[in-house]
Amino acid sequence: MKLYNYFRSSAAYRVRIALNLKGISWQHVGVHLLKAQHRAPEYLKLNPAGLVPTLVADDGAVLTQSLAIMEYLDDANLGDKPLLPPDPVDRAHVRGLALALACDVHPLNNVRVLNYITGELGASDAQKSAWLAHWMTLGLEAFEKTLAQSGSSGRFCFGDQPTMADCVLVPQMFSARRFNVDVSPYPRLVAIDEHCSTLPAFISAHPKNQPDFSP
Amino acid sequence: MKLYNYFRSSAAYRVRIALNLKGISWQHVGVHLLKAQHRAPEYLKLNPAGLVPTLVADDGAVLTQSLAIMEYLDDANLGDKPLLPPDPVDRAHVRGLALALACDVHPLNNVRVLNYITGELGASDAQKSAWLAHWMTLGLEAFEKTLAQSGSSGRFCFGDQPTMADCVLVPQMFSARRFNVDVSPYPRLVAIDEHCSTLPAFISAHPKNQPDFSP
Repeated sequence: MKLYNYFRSSAAYRVRIALNLKGISWQHVGVHLLKAQHRAPEYLKLNPAGLVPTLVADDGAVLTQSLAIMEYLDDANLGDKPLLPPDPVDRAHVRGLALALACDVHPLNNVRVLNYITGELGASDAQKSAWLAHWMTLGLEAFEKTLAQSGSSGRFCFGDQPTMADCVLVPQMFSARRFNVDVSPYPRLVAIDEHCSTLPAFISAHPKNQPDFSP
Repeated sequence: MKLYNYFRSSAAYRVRIALNLKGISWQHVGVHLLKAQHRAPEYLKLNPAGLVPTLVADDGAVLTQSLAIMEYLDDANLGDKPLLPPDPVDRAHVRGLALALACDVHPLNNVRVLNYITGELGASDAQKSAWLAHWMTLGLEAFEKTLAQSGSSGRFCFGDQPTMADCVLVPQMFSARRFNVDVSPYPRLVAIDEHCSTLPAFISAHPKNQPDFSP
């Protein structure tokens, strides 16, 4: 499998974790966002939205959207471990956690949106930081409360096995720290993130361990 | 089933369509966003993020996030028709379409974000309209191209049966028109939306047909 990705993209980072957790071997194809490689005609043929990641499966199938790619890995029974639990309500709970960050936090804090608010809307550096902190804080706070109310988190977001929710949480925590958002009010998230950070699947997916990494 | 929702919320509108397509009977519980009912302590117990929709199933299970709710309806085999096709690659394609709007367009254009850019960032009415048009145009353009490249759209986004992608597209088209975004450059989307608008499941889910509707 080929994963078209960018070391710092949260969405790509999610899929790297998922592939690693399942023990699927994959090839890293760099799409440098700051060099506008996601706007190159060849890449737009694979991914008309010009976003990362794109997965090209061994049979040539082209898949976009990180959560759809993770679902595909489960649906096609690829690799060792499912990323979702078997019970329908539990599955909805785990998907709800993943979507809470993928829909309500990440889309507000990615590069293209930050460029728009500082460019077209003339936001200052302080306003940009406040924007980032606002949406991340709202999202992480709700995530922590959801875990607390569910009573079903453990070493991971759902019990003691990693799921799709952890694949989304860990990149979001990385992003929060990168932008100096205080994560200490979210003890469950900090503990889960810390546990994940000791596991090879997560370590190997970290932005700093990608071939296209630059500081 | 009880669906906590708001007539104009795109995310709630998606789930209304899905429930109707499956022929599942459900009860409308209004959560008036402009009256801040989504911030009421009772509602936050159901949905810690304070967002709509929330589905309370007949067995008392509480489900949040529109896409997770739609997946649950399929997983639990509720109602007549699946919202996703059977093949893993096709499922990934349909989910990718749904996520392209749910992650890359809608989160940038909902009320709380518009309030932030006009409030904290001081965006003018013209800047707010430009913001809305920018993200919707990017997203709808990519969606149209994806359908064209896939060759698999028909009367609906995927072939001639409605899927989760249509449940997300139709509310997005409603939102685009409401904000005067020109949708004429997207002939496939216009045709699919027009076809859906003739079907009882979509008609009954329309904002203007909800008990909490106000102009």
